[in-house]
Amino acid sequence: MISNLIKYVDDHQEEYVQTLREWVAVESDSSDVTKRAELYRMMDMVGEKLRKMGGKVELVDIGEEQLPDGSSLALPKVVTAQFGSDVNKPTVCVYGHVDVQPAQKEDGWATEPYNLTEINGNLYGRGASDNKAPVLAWIHAVEAFKALDMDLPVNVKYLIEGMEETGSNGLDAMIKSQKSTFFSDVDYIIISDCGWLSKRPALTYGTRGNCYFFAEVEGPKQDLHSGVYGGTVIEPMTDLIGILDTLISPSGTILIPGIRDAVAPFSDEEWKMYQDIEFDVESYREKIGVEQLMYNNKVELLAHRWRHPTVSIHGINGAFSAPGTKTVIPAKVTGKFSIRQVPDMDPAVVEKQVTDHLHSVFAKRKSPNKLKVKMIIGAKPWLADIKHSLYEAGKAAVKRVFNVDADMIREGGTIPIARTFQDVTEKSIIMLPIGGFDDGLHSQNEKMSTKTWHYVLMCGLLY
Amino acid sequence: MISNLIKYVDDHQEEYVQTLREWVAVESDSSDVTKRAELYRMMDMVGEKLRKMGGKVELVDIGEEQLPDGSSLALPKVVTAQFGSDVNKPTVCVYGHVDVQPAQKEDGWATEPYNLTEINGNLYGRGASDNKAPVLAWIHAVEAFKALDMDLPVNVKYLIEGMEETGSNGLDAMIKSQKSTFFSDVDYIIISDCGWLSKRPALTYGTRGNCYFFAEVEGPKQDLHSGVYGGTVIEPMTDLIGILDTLISPSGTILIPGIRDAVAPFSDEEWKMYQDIEFDVESYREKIGVEQLMYNNKVELLAHRWRHPTVSIHGINGAFSAPGTKTVIPAKVTGKFSIRQVPDMDPAVVEKQVTDHLHSVFAKRKSPNKLKVKMIIGAKPWLADIKHSLYEAGKAAVKRVFNVDADMIREGGTIPIARTFQDVTEKSIIMLPIGGFDDGLHSQNEKMSTKTWHYVLMCGLLY
Repeated sequence: MISNLIKYVDDHQEEYVQTLREWVAVESDSSDVTKRAELYRMMDMVGEKLRKMGGKVELVDIGEEQLPDGSSLALPKVVTAQFGSDVNKPTVCVYGHVDVQPAQKEDGWATEPYNLTEINGNLYGRGASDNKAPVLAWIHAVEAFKALDMDLPVNVKYLIEGMEETGSNGLDAMIKSQKSTFFSDVDYIIISDCGWLSKRPALTYGTRGNCYFFAEVEGPKQDLHSGVYGGTVIEPMTDLIGILDTLISPSGTILIPGIRDAVAPFSDEEWKMYQDIEFDVESYREKIGVEQLMYNNKVELLAHRWRHPTVSIHGINGAFSAPGTKTVIPAKVTGKFSIRQVPDMDPAVVEKQVTDHLHSVFAKRKSPNKLKVKMIIGAKPWLADIKHSLYEAGKAAVKRVFNVDADMIREGGTIPIARTFQDVTEKSIIMLPIGGFDDGLHSQNEKMSTKTWHYVLMCGLLY
Repeated sequence: MISNLIKYVDDHQEEYVQTLREWVAVESDSSDVTKRAELYRMMDMVGEKLRKMGGKVELVDIGEEQLPDGSSLALPKVVTAQFGSDVNKPTVCVYGHVDVQPAQKEDGWATEPYNLTEINGNLYGRGASDNKAPVLAWIHAVEAFKALDMDLPVNVKYLIEGMEETGSNGLDAMIKSQKSTFFSDVDYIIISDCGWLSKRPALTYGTRGNCYFFAEVEGPKQDLHSGVYGGTVIEPMTDLIGILDTLISPSGTILIPGIRDAVAPFSDEEWKMYQDIEFDVESYREKIGVEQLMYNNKVELLAHRWRHPTVSIHGINGAFSAPGTKTVIPAKVTGKFSIRQVPDMDPAVVEKQVTDHLHSVFAKRKSPNKLKVKMIIGAKPWLADIKHSLYEAGKAAVKRVFNVDADMIREGGTIPIARTFQDVTEKSIIMLPIGGFDDGLHSQNEKMSTKTWHYVLMCGLLY
């Protein structure tokens, strides 16, 4: 049985690569409204592919988005599909997305980003790893069963969207509205929109959330010439720099009172689990290209990457940011920073702690300028129970295919859709990474290893 | 004699406005290379105007500028002109510029910026005050003598450039190379590229210099995702914010050791002079639109505007500066700030003080990132002797035309060309402002009052 499937998959490698090539060729960049027609075409291609396999396919209208110029633009439809509806079998729903981050050859790509190119067993192209190949892997798994006229061991549903890279606009509402229809018989949700930590296969059981803040300091009515006015006004930039400097210590400790109180204690059990994870601190350091990391010890480093909060200051809007010299006193500047959230932090509490802290340090400056603090994003962390049967099945699949134990890992980043699935559908979720640790998501020269890609097909078969 | 001239000037007001309208209509924005043809045309128009008046005109080639893409572009020629060469008369050289800052209606202009529009005695248009009308005023003064066939009381030279708004590229070299030719018989240099302080006419006897710094902090090889990497690296932005926060106190005191030691003491005589200057602190505060200024006392405020150093943080290059949210850890960020220079500060000393200070506070952070500090501009302050005959003549002219004593003022900004003229030609310089205090230089709705403009013609005649 399984051996037939494996043979089928092996025999169809070239066809799989060709399909991925066709998908990568579509510039489905969801951040660029001028590429929207390509995105619509991409969703149609996904629907068509699933329909040809005999699935019950729907392209769900999720409304429009408002553009900054006041006009509106249709969001790409969400593709849903169903294979099998046997009430005696569990139903698995695979989530994925087929939109991509922007890419241009000039950004530093060695190959044409939208022309899938194989070099030494790696398939280079925008969206190859994030997330087109993983989506196709889950599709090809069902296709193999269908082609061999074999019964699927589970009912399989797909939910494929086209706005993930810009915040999954419209998807939350769609999930909520289909809670008692599409999701009513779903038992498990699988997400393959993440990556391994090393060369060892991994299962992901947690992601950090994120609270993104704007701190706006407003002073003069308009930008002033720093020669003419400098020395007569308290400059908003001085105030902003001053308050941003109270967020985090030089060594990386968050200085906002209370923030760390809610962080779940790090247990001995966790310590042991982290200790076993395959992760080379030195290669990580070299890859990033810094002389020294914040922590040199593997467990400490992983813990601060996954299950401790951190502050990043992203930049300032309204100040002079171009190359060259400009002698301006910016009138209104907005500092942008975010705090990654971990269990048991609550964004509503963090919002109050940050706002209170900034207003308190600002008040001490006795500045005549005005401070406004606003939380723009408040995404909760997500954490799965690794003792759940879903993870046991995942571990077994990895063990069977690779003959190693899967590393149990977390993501430092935020995958808000996991949290939405959990909160709305109340189903169990597993993140089953297909992307390699060095796939260059969102970066230049994104790729998918043919070998890694191959694996998921196996896993898919074993569920 | 003088009355004929005054009548002539009065009779030709409409013609003067028409000429200014033609000049303002030329988008001679020197910061925009796509407008370079307009700038060349502007210089030709200036040359043509002076030639028609019978001047000995030259368009001096000052070479090319290198663009960031590696190509080069011819700088606009500098127009020089000469009227009279009587060895028994002193020779006055008028400096001005006819390039402008960028302007678009959308920036918030009430009128089309390149279509000179008269409203209630004000002529609105980009370059009206800075510096096209002042240049024309000095041209019309000589023109009136010529039209009436009257002898000029002095020999007059003009030096009109087209790159002032972007740093007078090429002009320093041109001045140096013509030291013993064009400048050999020049006795006095007049600059009208500044403004009054109030409604009372003024003469300007000093400008601040400027030291502009880039502080670059470099960490990872490339920008990182703040979710994936946040908590594992010491972020360059945190370091940069930390060191920028050590430059100036919340109340405006410069914290860099040694900086204030070189500042010339404020004498009682100066205090008295400042006390007499017409300047309303409250209107100044309202105009800027802040709740409170750095100093509420007139003398203190003017002193900190003109004759004390100040630090302005202009912005950061390399960080996220757009609207919206981006979860990035910028890999390399460059903070930009400048320190206004006053007598007896020396940019070379300031460079060392700032560099040492920043490296010292950076070292205390024990960061693995790299700091580079570079002084990009090091412009000295300029100060004239107000007891010089040139200023006595200026005061007399103002007194005769307006029947008030001229306020003796300084500029907080830097007019580097004044310092160059002084250092290279060793001639005496006077700054005779024509722009009104509320002309909105570099800003929206720039204008020139017809009344103020009229005045300089008078002054011109009296020299």
